[in-house]
Amino acid sequence: MAAVAAGIKKGGVLDLSMIYSDRPATAAAVFTQNTFIAAPLIVTKKNMQKSGHIARAVIVNSGNANAATGEPGIQAAQATADALAAAIECRPDEVIVSSTGVIGRPLPVVKIREAIPNLVAGLLPANLELLARGIMTTDTVPKIAATEVSGVRIAGVAKGAGMIHPDMATMLAFIMTDAALPYDELDEALRYAVHRSFNSISVDGDTSTNDMVVVLANGASGNRPTPQSFRDGLMDVCTQLATAIVRDGEGATKFVQIDIEGAPSESAAHTIGRAIARSPLVKTAIYGADPNWGRIVGAVGNSGVPLKSDRVDIYISGVPISDSTLEQARQKLREKEIQIRVVLHSGSASARVWTCDLTEGYIRINADYTT
Amino acid sequence: MAAVAAGIKKGGVLDLSMIYSDRPATAAAVFTQNTFIAAPLIVTKKNMQKSGHIARAVIVNSGNANAATGEPGIQAAQATADALAAAIECRPDEVIVSSTGVIGRPLPVVKIREAIPNLVAGLLPANLELLARGIMTTDTVPKIAATEVSGVRIAGVAKGAGMIHPDMATMLAFIMTDAALPYDELDEALRYAVHRSFNSISVDGDTSTNDMVVVLANGASGNRPTPQSFRDGLMDVCTQLATAIVRDGEGATKFVQIDIEGAPSESAAHTIGRAIARSPLVKTAIYGADPNWGRIVGAVGNSGVPLKSDRVDIYISGVPISDSTLEQARQKLREKEIQIRVVLHSGSASARVWTCDLTEGYIRINADYTT
Repeated sequence: MAAVAAGIKKGGVLDLSMIYSDRPATAAAVFTQNTFIAAPLIVTKKNMQKSGHIARAVIVNSGNANAATGEPGIQAAQATADALAAAIECRPDEVIVSSTGVIGRPLPVVKIREAIPNLVAGLLPANLELLARGIMTTDTVPKIAATEVSGVRIAGVAKGAGMIHPDMATMLAFIMTDAALPYDELDEALRYAVHRSFNSISVDGDTSTNDMVVVLANGASGNRPTPQSFRDGLMDVCTQLATAIVRDGEGATKFVQIDIEGAPSESAAHTIGRAIARSPLVKTAIYGADPNWGRIVGAVGNSGVPLKSDRVDIYISGVPISDSTLEQARQKLREKEIQIRVVLHSGSASARVWTCDLTEGYIRINADYTT
Repeated sequence: MAAVAAGIKKGGVLDLSMIYSDRPATAAAVFTQNTFIAAPLIVTKKNMQKSGHIARAVIVNSGNANAATGEPGIQAAQATADALAAAIECRPDEVIVSSTGVIGRPLPVVKIREAIPNLVAGLLPANLELLARGIMTTDTVPKIAATEVSGVRIAGVAKGAGMIHPDMATMLAFIMTDAALPYDELDEALRYAVHRSFNSISVDGDTSTNDMVVVLANGASGNRPTPQSFRDGLMDVCTQLATAIVRDGEGATKFVQIDIEGAPSESAAHTIGRAIARSPLVKTAIYGADPNWGRIVGAVGNSGVPLKSDRVDIYISGVPISDSTLEQARQKLREKEIQIRVVLHSGSASARVWTCDLTEGYIRINADYTT
């Protein structure tokens, strides 16, 4: 791994990072659901198809999203892959390209090309913190997670801090493992884990043009874990990274876990959980330590999910909400970590999502981003 | 029309209002899309069916939504209708009941019943301002609109000020006309007008448990306008009321009109417009006079609408956005009234929606509502 200051951002901060595998790695990825897909995602999708989901390296720049840049943007992303491939002596389609930053400005591909020799020269065996710092934009802390399961290591980094609608605040995660896994198993595990982690913070429909989560499995351990144990380990790393993004939410002062129980299906529970997690009225009430449970009921109703019963039981950090417990709930809402449990009496499925409060700090950060 | 202080709210403010027609009026209504429907809406739907869409009066309380109140709530709403019907000597099913305020508290039906004689005694021929004031909650100004078409008058009042997700900040509108119209024509005109006005401010999917728009046509003018001319008149009144709600958006400092052009269908244009109108990143950028057009592109992509072209032209108050016009656009964004025009090159349909900016004021108002 390596990160350098290529001059894409001002002030000499780290803005170009890479991940390198000394042997071919199986690569799986999940991309944004946004209608407009940024150039690096178009190029990476094509390259992954071409290479048969084998990758040797990931190159990521911050400071410029290379989105809404048309055909020249695609050429710039491909030129980035070509330049890195030449430097590390692999095929261009074995390079994964990723970008984050401001939309609609030409990628300074000359600066990137000039910085690549330094980037490659600075490769260190495993420096997750450097990598995590290299991809930060409005993040205030680097986001790193690691675990071990069945004799394999799984580690990753992520960036992202825009918590309401993470449009511009692209969410990126890069996960590496030394497990030996075929593409199908890796891809299935990634989709399972992403749905329950990155897609369970705020709303998965509200994606940026550049969002991507990539996992590389290079088999260096020589171990092939069972699908179940690998999936659990990957889920653990993804959950650590996703909740770290929530904790670093723009302007956030509180971390909120929302559990939906008694739902007709897991998908219904997930949809309801996200409706609560995205509601500005719920999020401002939490900020103000206001046990306004009517807003939670309103958000459940806004989800559009049909329910068998109109009975909704709400618990705030363990306190069952009723007229006589509001003061107790208010005390709980003053804490930094809050659990909201919503019991729907309409089935037996459940889901967990995470969000943060909505504060004046969010407004201040977002009212002036490009300038 | 009349409004009194029934003691539902503290401080002796107006909290109980009524509209009265001296003859049976044709009544049409549009109700919330929220899964949870408040008791007054359940009772009103049933009563309107029973009466064959004939109404004599509307009674509206603020300070208590009578929502999430179960069977006792339904009985309380019906008791309100019964009490008013007795006082004005009509059938209970000719009374439309409406409530707005905090969710989950029992409706103080005794206070309402005790206030009804004063309410009826205070009836005035036409006092829209009193009516508009009687239904206010977080509104800072009463919202009134009127027009004349083809020899008939159309006038209405509305309340609502929560502009991002109007969950708790229920949107209510009551419109009266002396046109002579059969129910089907009235209902069709109302649905047409509501879609292009109240459902075009922020997001129609994000509804409160109590939202309703009611129109009463009592035929007093003896005139029956053509469907087209009545529809246009009703649309005019609804648009005046809906945009007044946006202008009074909680914490809002700017009024934003968004025109989507070149869309594959009107429905697609509407969906895209609302995706932009609800985006906190767009709304905070407008607050900060930041011509961050990438956020508009991101919001278009988030709408999920498939487009034939990825070309998007954006105009801010007439300024076509490009790298060389950002300073000019920034100046325009400093004004109080902003037009955003988005041209999609994917068809010939268009739609117009309205929103406001998102400011620290919104957070302050919503972080402490029940207390």
